Amino acid sequence: MRIVVLAGGIGGARFLRGLKSAVPDAEITVIGNTGDDIHLFGLKVCPDLDTVMYTLGGGIHEEQGWGRAGETFAVKEELAAYGVGPEWFGLGDRDFATHIVRTQMLGAGYPLSAVTEALCARWRPGVRLLPMSDDRVETHVMIDDPEGGEGARKAVHFQEYWVRLHASVTAHAIVPVGAETAKPAPGVLEAVAAADVILFPPSNPVVSVGTILGVPGIREAVAASSAPVVGLSPIVGGAPVRGMADKVLEAVGVEATAAAVARHYGSGLIDGWLVDSVDADAVAEVEEAGIRCRAVPLMMTDLDATAAMAREALALAEEVRG
Amino acid sequence: MRIVVLAGGIGGARFLRGLKSAVPDAEITVIGNTGDDIHLFGLKVCPDLDTVMYTLGGGIHEEQGWGRAGETFAVKEELAAYGVGPEWFGLGDRDFATHIVRTQMLGAGYPLSAVTEALCARWRPGVRLLPMSDDRVETHVMIDDPEGGEGARKAVHFQEYWVRLHASVTAHAIVPVGAETAKPAPGVLEAVAAADVILFPPSNPVVSVGTILGVPGIREAVAASSAPVVGLSPIVGGAPVRGMADKVLEAVGVEATAAAVARHYGSGLIDGWLVDSVDADAVAEVEEAGIRCRAVPLMMTDLDATAAMAREALALAEEVRG
Repeated sequence: MRIVVLAGGIGGARFLRGLKSAVPDAEITVIGNTGDDIHLFGLKVCPDLDTVMYTLGGGIHEEQGWGRAGETFAVKEELAAYGVGPEWFGLGDRDFATHIVRTQMLGAGYPLSAVTEALCARWRPGVRLLPMSDDRVETHVMIDDPEGGEGARKAVHFQEYWVRLHASVTAHAIVPVGAETAKPAPGVLEAVAAADVILFPPSNPVVSVGTILGVPGIREAVAASSAPVVGLSPIVGGAPVRGMADKVLEAVGVEATAAAVARHYGSGLIDGWLVDSVDADAVAEVEEAGIRCRAVPLMMTDLDATAAMAREALALAEEVRG
Repeated sequence: MRIVVLAGGIGGARFLRGLKSAVPDAEITVIGNTGDDIHLFGLKVCPDLDTVMYTLGGGIHEEQGWGRAGETFAVKEELAAYGVGPEWFGLGDRDFATHIVRTQMLGAGYPLSAVTEALCARWRPGVRLLPMSDDRVETHVMIDDPEGGEGARKAVHFQEYWVRLHASVTAHAIVPVGAETAKPAPGVLEAVAAADVILFPPSNPVVSVGTILGVPGIREAVAASSAPVVGLSPIVGGAPVRGMADKVLEAVGVEATAAAVARHYGSGLIDGWLVDSVDADAVAEVEEAGIRCRAVPLMMTDLDATAAMAREALALAEEVRG
């Protein structure tokens, strides 16, 4: 079975671990979000790709969900001693090595997809991990600019909004800078076309899955695919399971409910949608929108629970395949 | 008193510490060797500038003489796990931060001299540290190429010859690639012209002081200076005090003796020369070559001994000034 998964960071990575456990023999291609990539200290940092790679490769800091296990912070402390920031982005020493290798390879002319493959040669994540694009796409967030006078706004990098500001200010718009001219990375459209099932894990529907779908050609390929497309709601009981998805949903005018996110994707894109058991009353609303829906437990509390979610998603895919 | 010192790495840095102790009120400008700079992992590494900066700024690994005190090696271990080398060059985590800041600033368009000044704003070495040039000069060493057939030779980076090969193979020639078109960094010629005294510490006369003098304009400025120029022999009793200066002296056809190094610099360049007490019989030979010479203890065993050497050098400078 060939499965394609459009994944963000922590939520996507944890779901993938469950999926691998549920169907160990499946051939899984992950299309990773690179919209929250950032250049820090002259290095190219790809938080979502690395979270998937470290999580599936056994190097992740389990409790934190991102970064490396057994991490130290000597480099960051030294950079701070030089007065070089930002200090709000937590790069550890082990993590730095990944960014150093990536930056060196990019500087030598390799595209990000080739670099990601090279990094994965060490981590052996057990999936084929592709960046959504080799082109630079950078998610910016429009926020109020208190220094700019009445009604003034400014764009900040997604990481600044998310990590430094903890999404505590109003996001007026999400702007994927560069998306309109980006091309899907080699293998992305081919994987979508060849997929038996396409899954949207409970990743952020705006700044993770939405950004991937915003690369011209990817949304169209997913919509055109004959394979069932099934998503899992990242919103449970009216709030994000983790992260701050509600903040960015508001920016795109979508209510933070399991049903609203399903309608946001739409029946032209997804065929099936899983909501959490507590949102069972959303099933009818989703099905009215032309999307097959089931309510099942959607909390990734451990590997077994996550594998069960993956099995439910695959079962729903079989059901909609009919 | 304005003192200009042409310095390599460990020997130069230790001498400078003694000099600062001997004349705390002197205005010291250090012209640092950048010929052994190397690009590693996409980062610009300046071993000699950093050794001076760390030594005078209190961050040096005292026993080792280079690198940072309290160093850890997580980044290097991770790079090795990615199969990314070289493993023979020992970059620690704290040290990496310096190279990251430097590389980022160079990438942003700052010349090396401005970058060095910015790094020194943290370390406050108590001297003005200037790279010999903002242009790339890279010392290569011609060695035998066993894979190239009879008589074949190849050029390797100085660090590969020095650190990886421990200078254990014959150096046929020392080639400062890029030197012929390099320009002295801003402030270098001005400092030489304004100097009251110019000192050559017991640094390597070929690949440290020699490389600095090889930047067009610097040797000429030193030779033309009205200030006394005094050097300290790095060779004691026919062998280098530390390092492997004898290996590279051989490559330029100079005997590894205190007198031969003085003649190599020549009376057109230096006015005074200190040899170690054990080389007292070299004094006559050096003076015959037109260079005032004295035999004094030249072992930098501790700060007091090093300060005494600096005082002897300054005393000899006063003597030749006449």
